[in-house]
Amino acid sequence: MVVKSQLKYIKSLQQKKFRNTHNRFVAEGLKTVSELLGSGCKAETLMTTEVDLSQVSGQATQLISTKQMAQISSLKNPSRVLGVFEIPKPVEVQFSDWVLALDSIRDPGNLGTIIRLCDWFGIAHLLCSPDTVDAYNPKVLQATMGSIARVNLVYTDLLAILKSAPVPVYGAFMDGDSLYETKLPQNGILILGNEARGISKDVSALIGQKLGIPQYGQPTAESLNVATATAILLHEVRRA
Amino acid sequence: MVVKSQLKYIKSLQQKKFRNTHNRFVAEGLKTVSELLGSGCKAETLMTTEVDLSQVSGQATQLISTKQMAQISSLKNPSRVLGVFEIPKPVEVQFSDWVLALDSIRDPGNLGTIIRLCDWFGIAHLLCSPDTVDAYNPKVLQATMGSIARVNLVYTDLLAILKSAPVPVYGAFMDGDSLYETKLPQNGILILGNEARGISKDVSALIGQKLGIPQYGQPTAESLNVATATAILLHEVRRA
Repeated sequence: MVVKSQLKYIKSLQQKKFRNTHNRFVAEGLKTVSELLGSGCKAETLMTTEVDLSQVSGQATQLISTKQMAQISSLKNPSRVLGVFEIPKPVEVQFSDWVLALDSIRDPGNLGTIIRLCDWFGIAHLLCSPDTVDAYNPKVLQATMGSIARVNLVYTDLLAILKSAPVPVYGAFMDGDSLYETKLPQNGILILGNEARGISKDVSALIGQKLGIPQYGQPTAESLNVATATAILLHEVRRA
Repeated sequence: MVVKSQLKYIKSLQQKKFRNTHNRFVAEGLKTVSELLGSGCKAETLMTTEVDLSQVSGQATQLISTKQMAQISSLKNPSRVLGVFEIPKPVEVQFSDWVLALDSIRDPGNLGTIIRLCDWFGIAHLLCSPDTVDAYNPKVLQATMGSIARVNLVYTDLLAILKSAPVPVYGAFMDGDSLYETKLPQNGILILGNEARGISKDVSALIGQKLGIPQYGQPTAESLNVATATAILLHEVRRA
């Protein structure tokens, strides 16, 4: 039996402050929930509206009504499965491979797409400035399509990391050196900045080389979206 | 004076069938409206909620209340400027440069991002299969950030075009030839397919070479989002 207080608790996890208080987040959808379980994320509660999904990956799942699901879901069209998970503890960042760092990314869809890109391009560690949108925000989680289970997310002071970085530091800039003409090393830190303001001044000061994605033809389009820019940069990083 | 029937007419243009009946679409936001005017798009009506914007690009603008703007806007937070424009007549497609073709793209955000990418990478002509989401859909327009004014959009039967294509035809596939190892020519047609199903069978049959974006490391991430894949492919197309 699901009690009202439990539904209220789950709904509260849509807000960052309650996620932090309880160290829990909510994932929706069979795919995302399955991928989190498959990656060893610890589920506190699994809920489903369908009897034949009452065993998700062998774990006991509470059967709830579609009305109850609608109450706790963040989605317009609630899914059949929802899980409450422990927020994974970040592991130590390894600089033996490329590391991606985000300076104040604010749009949940962009962060979700970037996490999905990290997964595709095998980027294991993603550093986020403390003012980057929370990765356990429901909108981010939806956009990651389950990839969040396979990327080590570290919210941290970028300046402290960059000051002692054991590898070269690159940043994406509108006026950076052409990606077509830059040979990238086997490892490094790649930084992308805020959607409107780009990389902050303090972080910029610690960047060794500015990289740019050459525009073609007339200079008309204002800029690339940060997620599409990340796609192109990671594609180049993996060319090496 | 704005009359009720005019507001009703503008609101109706949020729906494709009325856009097609009247051959008009609505653009919102000073930036998008200005870029459309600057690109020679013909405005039927310009409306604003602010006196100091009552001359947009020298054209007469009707002053309306914020309440009226909220009635006709497709946005949660209506902008200060709205324009009703003629849907531009597509111009003849030139194959002297790369042409992008979309086979059944359904997500407005994806199409908007792809139009913005065409603008950045100087792709002048964008072919869309008839079942691709309508580019004058308000959500697409918002995502294009004004770029729609600079790309020639042609909704057309892709099969007919491809059958008589005067240039090589490429398509994006999960199992295509690695982009890192493929030398692309100076012109061609590049096709991207539906978010869930990819490129349709009939269109696939007319493709000369399949291109793929190599995944790195463990094969985990299911696929790239079609807009991020387009970003990487256009970046490669312009490397030549």
